[in-house]
Parts: sequence; structure tokens; C-alpha cells
Amino acid sequence: MIIITKGVAQLTEIKKGLQDVIALETRISCIDGEKGILKYRNFDINELVNLSYDSVSYLLLNGDIPNNTELDDFSSKLKNEREINENLIQTIKTCNFNIEAMDALRTAVSHMSHCDLDLNDISHDANIRKAIKLIARFPTIVASFSRIKTGYNPLSPDYNLSHGANFLYMLSGEKPDELEAKVMEKDLILTAEHELNASTFSSRVTASTLSDLHSAIISGLDTLKGPLHGGARMAVMNMLDEVSSSNDAEQYVMDLIQNNQKIMGFGHRVYKTYDPRSNIYKDLAKKLAENKGDSTLYNIAERIEDTVIQELVEKQNKPIYPNADFYSGVIYKYLGLHPKLATSVFAIGRVSGWIAHCLEQYSDNRLIRPRARSI
Amino acid sequence: MIIITKGVAQLTEIKKGLQDVIALETRISCIDGEKGILKYRNFDINELVNLSYDSVSYLLLNGDIPNNTELDDFSSKLKNEREINENLIQTIKTCNFNIEAMDALRTAVSHMSHCDLDLNDISHDANIRKAIKLIARFPTIVASFSRIKTGYNPLSPDYNLSHGANFLYMLSGEKPDELEAKVMEKDLILTAEHELNASTFSSRVTASTLSDLHSAIISGLDTLKGPLHGGARMAVMNMLDEVSSSNDAEQYVMDLIQNNQKIMGFGHRVYKTYDPRSNIYKDLAKKLAENKGDSTLYNIAERIEDTVIQELVEKQNKPIYPNADFYSGVIYKYLGLHPKLATSVFAIGRVSGWIAHCLEQYSDNRLIRPRARSI
Repeated sequence: MIIITKGVAQLTEIKKGLQDVIALETRISCIDGEKGILKYRNFDINELVNLSYDSVSYLLLNGDIPNNTELDDFSSKLKNEREINENLIQTIKTCNFNIEAMDALRTAVSHMSHCDLDLNDISHDANIRKAIKLIARFPTIVASFSRIKTGYNPLSPDYNLSHGANFLYMLSGEKPDELEAKVMEKDLILTAEHELNASTFSSRVTASTLSDLHSAIISGLDTLKGPLHGGARMAVMNMLDEVSSSNDAEQYVMDLIQNNQKIMGFGHRVYKTYDPRSNIYKDLAKKLAENKGDSTLYNIAERIEDTVIQELVEKQNKPIYPNADFYSGVIYKYLGLHPKLATSVFAIGRVSGWIAHCLEQYSDNRLIRPRARSI
Repeated sequence: MIIITKGVAQLTEIKKGLQDVIALETRISCIDGEKGILKYRNFDINELVNLSYDSVSYLLLNGDIPNNTELDDFSSKLKNEREINENLIQTIKTCNFNIEAMDALRTAVSHMSHCDLDLNDISHDANIRKAIKLIARFPTIVASFSRIKTGYNPLSPDYNLSHGANFLYMLSGEKPDELEAKVMEKDLILTAEHELNASTFSSRVTASTLSDLHSAIISGLDTLKGPLHGGARMAVMNMLDEVSSSNDAEQYVMDLIQNNQKIMGFGHRVYKTYDPRSNIYKDLAKKLAENKGDSTLYNIAERIEDTVIQELVEKQNKPIYPNADFYSGVIYKYLGLHPKLATSVFAIGRVSGWIAHCLEQYSDNRLIRPRARSI
């Protein structure tokens, strides 16, 4: 228990990792971890997933779902800022291509900040201008890195495609079919925001010193990368490869459980039941499998899930359900994404949420500076 | 008051900015804000300031002051890693030179990470190898940026000079005199560590997802940049310029107070009396003034301090004392540092503290993920 009296914290027990400590108030989203409910700005994720990413991004930044005129305006602004300049492409070319796209994305965003005329202006208007550029260019940077890494030239964005579909197009050079485009768009929506997760929290800590928006977003990228956070999707994809080659999902999971090892894509600090995003992801994965006419991967994933539920939830009564990273990892494999892109695709979705939280932080700021107890 | 019971936070009042909330336990340093005491690893800052930066850096990373053999070994490792390669210099050359050195430092560190063979290895041994490179190269990156920006070629480090003296040499091309070298070294020591300040906290949040050390350090850079944190030194230098040209320090301060504006370099979240670093800085500033035979700037600074103490501490009973950023700003001006270098010089000192905290975080990790209350 932590009891705080005027100016002095009296400590009897530290909640490690600030687990369940309420650090601030937000209007951006809310989670009911007991009931498995997630809302952005008071709209349930099951409704939002049927909108476009642009629409959800507008909602996060502005507080309401845009009407048609507002959406058209916001979408064209985003589309007009998708292109990246030759300087930035040169920066991406100097990256070592064994790294994850995340590392290149961070270097590129840091470099991009240098040329932003609004760099150190943290007024709302300047931040909105920067927000449009950041959201619009994340997919172009990641796709350009991936193209150059695999020996191709980067492609110009296609103005006629949605945020998600254009990303898939810039990666492969082929326009995705309708289902793939829809799935990519929904993945970005499902990923856009999740209350005070570690990367959003670190973005807000950065913004709370009144550092600039690019710095706060880079702080989010830094923190997202870890395998206990956004890095989990890459780990899930690698796990799926291992299980596919071992051809025995049940045994694979049992071995992990017996050795007390973490099963990537399962369990969550906040959810104590099914993650509402996971159900949507699972349904999308199934559709992709049917569309491809090959359910092998989907069946493996389902067998992993069933084994975990049976062994940990039913037998041991632990709330270890699939989280958003599990079936999204399956989806990324069906979409042909390389595992080293996975965390950067997460970032392409999450950047809208980070920015929304930073705007909220700047609008009523107090430096986030806790204390440590010396031992 | 925040009362935490098993798994559920019951909130009656949120302490904005996590003020006085104890987020974790640490062995790296402790502050007594009421008495004005600062210790790194249980050694008082007034003792530590007489050691070398290498020695204090070793202390922070390893827990004890090195003996002569240990120090020689650690110092040579640092000196051997000072040089940066041509690739990194090329990256620095692509930076926009209107930006602060901080922004270039971040891009360079992000780029440097790409080529680190240990990049995603967070074992203690790998982190120590990365730590040596980061600590050693920060001054070289900043000095190279400054040289290129002002039309000169970057210089190779001088193996015979201390960490601080070599930095001054790489900036100007001239070896600093004995006092300047000593002051630079002491500034880096005084800056090296300060418990759970915002940048250190954000480094630990990043490390807590098991993201890599470079990511955690970049998160620190992102957060340090803000004017409510490391950016305050640049603001102090700019204020000193304004006061010098107005030639009326007292009136300048009175105007700020009457308009309820923050006086840069005064007040601190934790100290409610004189910041122990401030006293040391003030003494060093006085010595530099005497050495230069020109006390104009020092006298202005002292007049600002006296006015603040008289008006805010004595008349209004507010604990607004000079903090570490005030007289360090004075010192940076005497050392001829450009204001746009100030925050990066802060980072050159602080990186040892950030790394020490990350090592502590990795060694006994729990994801730092608080909750938000939805409104």
C-alpha cells in the first residue's frame, strides 16, 4: 500500500511495475479488464473496427468520429503527406539491413524531425501539423526500408488506396485483394490505442518535460520495441514457425508450461478474460485462411490456443487468454509480412494513440517525475 | 490518496505527475530533498566531485569506487572507444544545422545502434560493452556536430586528456587550461545521476519492456530535451543573455515574478532547500570568473539569485532555490559553449546514470505499466 500525504510519500509496499497504480486521467480510451471491454473515446472497439483507419485516427486526435466533410479533409491531408523525400530515403539506405524495421523507423523519424519547421513548437496547431506528417509517413518509411532491404526501389504511395491497403501496396508493389486490404486496415485500427500501455506512458513522460512531439513519439518507438510489449508479435511469428516445423502444437505448449516459460501472445497485465481485440483478430485470421484456401497455420494457432486454455485457464485457473499479439501474428503471416517488420507495423497503428495522449498531456501538463526509495 | 488492494487500484485522488509517488527501489542514488543531500551509491556528491568522471561512471555502473587497477582498465576501455567511424560522421553531416545538438545526438545514437553486434542482446555483459561505447562516444558525437556546424573538420579524441577535457578539446581544437578542464569534468560528475528524474524514469520504462539498451538511452535523450528538464540549461543561458543586455537583473526577475512566470534554473520538484549541486556549481562559476578576470556574468547571476531568494524565499516563503541548471548555465557560458549544445552536454554527463538504472531494471525486471482513470 502506498499512502500519500501532503508532499511526502509514506511507503509500506511498492507495487512493482506500477501495477494497478493510476498514474493519470485520460479521455482517450478505457479498458475494463474484468469484462473484456475496450473503448476509444467511448466507442466500443467492435464498432470502431468497421470504420477506416483515417476515421479512427481523427477520432483519437479530435474526440469525435468525423462527419463526411471532416473525414474527406483529414484523409486528403494524410494522403498528401504520405510521400517521403529523397533525403529521408538516403537516410534509410544507410541503415544496416539486418536490423528490424523498427530501428530504421526510429532513425528516420529522428532525422525527419530535423527538417520540421515546427520542431520545437508544441502549440496544438503545430502538433496537429506534425501529427499528420507522422501518421502519414510511418507506412512509407517502413515500406521503403523493406523494399530497399530486399533489393527493390521504394514505391510512391497510391492516393486511391486506404491507409492500410496503400501500406501493403508499397511493400509488395501489388494492390492487395479486398479482404487483405480490409484486414490490414482493421489491424491498424485495433492497434491504434490501448490506454496507458508502456509505450504510451513513456511518450507522455517525455511530453511532460515539454519536449517536442517527435521526441515523445520516438520515446514510444523505443519502448514499443521490447518483447514484453510490441515486440511480442515478432515473437509470436517466430513461435508459429517453430511449431509448424515441429508439427506438434500441443507438445510445444506443454513443454513451455512445464518449464514455466512465457507463451508469447498469451496473458495481459490488464485483461483477466478474453481480450476483445483477440476475438476480432481470430475471426479475421479465419477469413484469411479460407480466402487462401489453406488453413494449416490457422489450425496450428487454434491448437496452441486450445492447449493454453485447457492447461492454464481450465486446469490451473490462471487468466492466461490470447492477447492482441497472438492472432495478429497469425494475420501478419497470412499477409506475407516478414517478422522483422512486425513491431513497426504495430507502430504504424499505434502512432495515432501516442499522439492523442501527447496532445492531452501538453494541454494540461504536469511533469511526470515520481520518486524512488533508496535501498 | 491512492489505496492499492490486491489487483485493484481504488482511487480517491490522483497525484498529478506522480508527485511523491514511489515508483521503485534503487541502489543507484538517493536524495534528501529536505536536507539538500545527494548521494550516488551512498557517496556524498561533495566527495564525488573530487574524483574523475571515469571513476564516478564506474561507481554508478558497478556499485563501488574503482581501485587504481580497475580505474586504469575502465578508463582505457572508454578512451579506446571514443573515436567514431566515418559512417557516423556522414550521418552527422546530413543533419540540419539549425537544430540543437541534442537532436543530432539522438539521430547519431540511433544510427550507431544499427551496427552494434550486441544490439538486441540485453545480457549484463553485452550491456556493459554497449555502455562503454555510449559513454565514450557521446562527447565525440556532440563535438563533431558542433565542429561541422561551424565549418570545421571533426577532430580525433586525445587519449591523454580526461573525459571532460577531451570534450572541450574536440570542440575548440585547443587544449583547455587546468581550471576549465577541471570544471568540465566536475560538471559531468554533478550531472551524472539524479535518482528517478523524468529522463531516467523514461529510460527505465523503456528497459522494462526488455527493449534494448540503445532504445532505453534514446528514450532518456527524448525526455531530457524538454525545458522542464535538461532543456532548462539552454533556457538559463538565453535568460543570462537577455539580462545582460537589459542590464537590470533585479527588474528582470521582478517582472517575471509579477507575471507569475517561471524563472529558469530555480525551484525543483524534490529539493525544498539549496540543491547541493548548486553550491558546488556556484563556487566553480566564481573561480572561472576570477580566472578570466571578468566577473560581469557571475555578478549578474548572483544578482538574479539574490533577488529570487529575497522575493520568493524570504518574502513569500516559497522553496524556490537555484537548482543545478542555474550556475551550470553560467559555467557553460564561461566555457564558451553555445546554448544549442547545453542539453547535449547534460546528456554527456547523465548517460552513465541512465545506463546504471537500466542495468538495475534489467537485473530484476517487471514491466512498468500503470493504469489511467477514464473520464
